[in-house]
Amino acid sequence: MSHIVLRCPRCGRTRPADMSTDVCRDCGAPLDVEYLADHKTDGKSNTYEARTPVHNASSGVSLGEGDTPCVHLKALGENLGMRRLHGKLEFLNPTGSFKDRGTAVMISVAMDHGVTELVEDSSGNAGASVSAYAARAGVKAHVFVPADAPQAKLRQIRIYGAEVHPIEGLRDAVTAAAMVYHRQQGLVYASHMLSPYFAEGTKTFAYEVAQQFDGALPDHIVFPVGNGSLFIGAFKGFCELQAAGHTGKIPRLHCVQARNVMPLVAAFTGQAWDPEAASRTVAGGIAIAAPSRQEQILDILRLVEGTAVAVEEPSIMQMQLDLAKQEGIFAEPTSAAAFAGLEEIAKQGVIRENDTVLVPVTGFGLKDEVPL
Amino acid sequence: MSHIVLRCPRCGRTRPADMSTDVCRDCGAPLDVEYLADHKTDGKSNTYEARTPVHNASSGVSLGEGDTPCVHLKALGENLGMRRLHGKLEFLNPTGSFKDRGTAVMISVAMDHGVTELVEDSSGNAGASVSAYAARAGVKAHVFVPADAPQAKLRQIRIYGAEVHPIEGLRDAVTAAAMVYHRQQGLVYASHMLSPYFAEGTKTFAYEVAQQFDGALPDHIVFPVGNGSLFIGAFKGFCELQAAGHTGKIPRLHCVQARNVMPLVAAFTGQAWDPEAASRTVAGGIAIAAPSRQEQILDILRLVEGTAVAVEEPSIMQMQLDLAKQEGIFAEPTSAAAFAGLEEIAKQGVIRENDTVLVPVTGFGLKDEVPL
Repeated sequence: MSHIVLRCPRCGRTRPADMSTDVCRDCGAPLDVEYLADHKTDGKSNTYEARTPVHNASSGVSLGEGDTPCVHLKALGENLGMRRLHGKLEFLNPTGSFKDRGTAVMISVAMDHGVTELVEDSSGNAGASVSAYAARAGVKAHVFVPADAPQAKLRQIRIYGAEVHPIEGLRDAVTAAAMVYHRQQGLVYASHMLSPYFAEGTKTFAYEVAQQFDGALPDHIVFPVGNGSLFIGAFKGFCELQAAGHTGKIPRLHCVQARNVMPLVAAFTGQAWDPEAASRTVAGGIAIAAPSRQEQILDILRLVEGTAVAVEEPSIMQMQLDLAKQEGIFAEPTSAAAFAGLEEIAKQGVIRENDTVLVPVTGFGLKDEVPL
Repeated sequence: MSHIVLRCPRCGRTRPADMSTDVCRDCGAPLDVEYLADHKTDGKSNTYEARTPVHNASSGVSLGEGDTPCVHLKALGENLGMRRLHGKLEFLNPTGSFKDRGTAVMISVAMDHGVTELVEDSSGNAGASVSAYAARAGVKAHVFVPADAPQAKLRQIRIYGAEVHPIEGLRDAVTAAAMVYHRQQGLVYASHMLSPYFAEGTKTFAYEVAQQFDGALPDHIVFPVGNGSLFIGAFKGFCELQAAGHTGKIPRLHCVQARNVMPLVAAFTGQAWDPEAASRTVAGGIAIAAPSRQEQILDILRLVEGTAVAVEEPSIMQMQLDLAKQEGIFAEPTSAAAFAGLEEIAKQGVIRENDTVLVPVTGFGLKDEVPL
């Protein structure tokens, strides 16, 4: 496609945009989309409209993702000692998670390139999302999953029609099997972790936040982070908005992980942590022991003066119940982890009582086993 | 509250608006909200803004319900022989069903009246919705359910904190138990079937349709109908829009039921049908053998030249799969029933190829047992 190139965020080298998810050939980092200069100003400067890597947006695939509600969480905020706590209900996306933002763009770009069959690996929200959007686009999807993934999640992936490939072993083995399959079969690897187009989709999150807060961005946004696709996308969006003069300072973006799988927290805070030490967490959506974009996430954290905290299993489960019983919001444990992390960050004195704080509620509790 | 009264749609008698769900004392019909004349024109005539029975809307309870996406269903439409088939994704409401529209208004009015504890009976979407909004409003909810209701549905009701009262016997016994309890305990009966405020909430559906279709309303809207709260609310909304000069002819509203529980279809088409003959259907959300607003629903059907059709279990289940695999939409069986009914209505020649057709996808498939 002519209006974008792919750029390595580490060494800066570019290459033409294609459907490959290969990392930078020079330094090995996953790539980002960059818009060509003459496409930057397209007369939309007074609207909060995100640029998109999709060549022909009107022929792309959409299920009406985005435009999720943002609600004041008065009761929970009071309990956490903050008056201006808001939740953005990202679980009200078409397959029940924020992933739909990224998938819609990734699959639309795939359609631009004439792709008719693709491979993804995810036992959870990304797998369901890719299966749904591929179905709507008339594209065949192969989704590689751990053989022991929760049945409820596998059922959602299957109902949209993807061919599910269960793989024995650890999460890494699933990714390895997907990569072998896409190479052997000559299929596109539409990985939500590596695709440069996925984070381009999630950046609309930032544009909506700017609109919903009327340009006065929140002081803090607290994300549950596994692969970091929403975290990275939001940062990109806020950078674009700032560059276009729509908004001021980028919010402090914070990163929450489960204590049981905390590579980013360890790396950011200088703790020793071995991926082999990862153990099961109820927050399955952020159980990524070796995030492929770890370096990029850490760079962003430093730039925006964010923090990274790890939370214990009981506090995640308690927060899931608190959200439901105090605010009427049924989040999956992964999303509840962000609120548990917020509690931790507040204890550290990083957030003050009058700060405006936003937390994306990334996935619907209906998707998971219910803790009752 | 001073700007509304309750009016009997059958005999026309009015009485002051309160939180009672008693039927008309003269003729026994459930009541509707009527806005007092001097409140009718409030300077909003050039916007699609619905009037609300809530006294102080800013202090009401909301989880960001409504504003659901409307998407073109090209593949499914082609299979059904219609070029302009659209789905409005009502399952992207905060608890996963359209019920949230009605609940938000019903609970907000309850807050206007200082209610702190209430009773509802529903084993499904309405129960979960009332439990969630009551939680957010800080109101205690008692939800009466059939003892044999699906565990997945009961879990969602429980997680928001409602006290669940399981009742042995048929659905009618559950309603009876709820009514005894609310009278004995002196609590408000916030029934989604009887409350005049519930349908006032669902009418925003019509306002959004008018906006999304830019004033040119669809020719047909096909609803899955049990108690008919969305069907009745949509009709009210379209009437208001027409009266305000925003839109022209009201769309033909059609009603779909499962063959196993088809009181409205039988009454409308003059077939004999005994509520005792009701049998189990996968479309649990419309399994209402004796709808309390049956007469009102039939009146509307006649007014808008609608039809009422009954569908078989296999066609409901097949349509649930078709929606997922062709459009990437995971609907609960109740919602799939409407599309199965649409197929039936099209066969009858009521819908032409170029007609614009809309179907609300009322509930998320994640809420139910998955057919795989």
